[in-house]
Amino acid sequence: MEFSPGSFGARVRQAVERSGPLCAGIDPSGELLRAWGLSDDVEGLRAFCQICVEAWGGGVVPVIKPQVAFFERHGSAGVAELERLIADAAEADLIVLADAKRGDVMTTAAAYADAWLGTRSPLAADAVTVHPFLGLAALSPLVVLAGQTGRGVIVVARSSNPEGRPLQEAVTASGVSVEESLLAEIAALNASADIPAGTVGAVIGATLAATTFPLSQLGGVILAPGLGAQGARPSDVASRFGGCAPGSVLASTSRSLLSAGPDISQLRKSAWELAHELSSLMG
Amino acid sequence: MEFSPGSFGARVRQAVERSGPLCAGIDPSGELLRAWGLSDDVEGLRAFCQICVEAWGGGVVPVIKPQVAFFERHGSAGVAELERLIADAAEADLIVLADAKRGDVMTTAAAYADAWLGTRSPLAADAVTVHPFLGLAALSPLVVLAGQTGRGVIVVARSSNPEGRPLQEAVTASGVSVEESLLAEIAALNASADIPAGTVGAVIGATLAATTFPLSQLGGVILAPGLGAQGARPSDVASRFGGCAPGSVLASTSRSLLSAGPDISQLRKSAWELAHELSSLMG
Repeated sequence: MEFSPGSFGARVRQAVERSGPLCAGIDPSGELLRAWGLSDDVEGLRAFCQICVEAWGGGVVPVIKPQVAFFERHGSAGVAELERLIADAAEADLIVLADAKRGDVMTTAAAYADAWLGTRSPLAADAVTVHPFLGLAALSPLVVLAGQTGRGVIVVARSSNPEGRPLQEAVTASGVSVEESLLAEIAALNASADIPAGTVGAVIGATLAATTFPLSQLGGVILAPGLGAQGARPSDVASRFGGCAPGSVLASTSRSLLSAGPDISQLRKSAWELAHELSSLMG
Repeated sequence: MEFSPGSFGARVRQAVERSGPLCAGIDPSGELLRAWGLSDDVEGLRAFCQICVEAWGGGVVPVIKPQVAFFERHGSAGVAELERLIADAAEADLIVLADAKRGDVMTTAAAYADAWLGTRSPLAADAVTVHPFLGLAALSPLVVLAGQTGRGVIVVARSSNPEGRPLQEAVTASGVSVEESLLAEIAALNASADIPAGTVGAVIGATLAATTFPLSQLGGVILAPGLGAQGARPSDVASRFGGCAPGSVLASTSRSLLSAGPDISQLRKSAWELAHELSSLMG
């Protein structure tokens, strides 16, 4: 399925064509702040983010994924640093995927949509990750607002951690698993006339064997975590998502890139090399 | 199962014995701010919260549940108002359940634990709600820290919205549904020697027919949303959770209480009447 012009998916595809299919996680844990010689506080957080944007902006990587928990850990002052990062990344031509894994119903879902996808919000990113435990249909305020603002919603469907398997492989009344059912729902949303194709994506772990769902039919961006520290190799990503359209898959890694820091040229080099390897494998 | 002294569950039980089994939701949506004659910004948010604490503090209701999305909607400045509310509520002898529905794995789960349950965090509440889509076991950093700090983790297990049914009723490999499997896992955690009994609770919608899991064995607080606007009556809560120990169930409502505002005496009266009705039904 083609992504609609101006959709989140189309923007990702264009950026991937330029820089390679890599999503660089920004995970400023206390441990990593200390390893970079920074203080475990908002000043350290700010310096960490500035280094990442300087290393990866301007076309080195297409997409960054700040992990919201590491900002929230410092309270509202940490959230203010996330706002700063989102603004700085936009200046540096980086697509920002806020890894917030939010999810709720009704007016609450609408409030999360306002926060992460609204045009006037300081936290508005290019896309936000969501949890579907309350049902994907309950998240429609997020999906609708993303469609209206050219942003994206990335649904956690098939996570790379082993603890998630029993729930995600449970069988629904329609006879398919929870994760396959979610992938089908995502494909149906992207194929509908209500939103631009490419608005709704999925998290699909790169550490797992292939799903039976035809991923080429998803119509949205696939975020594939698990590269590096969690065990997946670039060749695993290439073989598991080989049938997908070029530019629709983002291999996501954090620790294996961030361990090159705080040296900016090393951070840039390791991201560039990984993006290049992924590009050559995935075509 | 008895709650351990000093656990989150024991604190809730004590507060419920004094004030009734009511959790008052604080949902400052844009619509409600305007209905109260307040501005849809951080000043309005602050005034809204101050009114709620003044109306409900000092023993009128035992537990408040700020819905984090309505703060996040105003960016970091809104999150700062949530920090203020949490501090003010503690002064007013209100137990605060942060309805954040967070959930992630490994170091990210630990970062959410630091944010919502850590001793030094300005966002630390008495308990936080979590999403189990990645597997309850993945959330162990939250569970462990809650046990250490006398705080609670409330797992969304069986939500009151219809969109959640297919996923939550899906059947796991062990032959039981996702929701029943989660309730059994929660009971096992509370019964383990690793954490105080009463640390891990569950969200179980009051709008649904009774689960087959013996809720009296959960060992944690049950948060039962759905009262009022979503259709459950106090008598439904009483009949659906009748087998549970007194003080272990919190009927949760927001709109039906908040519609009495912004008049403080009306807000207090409607909460007091509802808590009294619930108390008399639930013994």
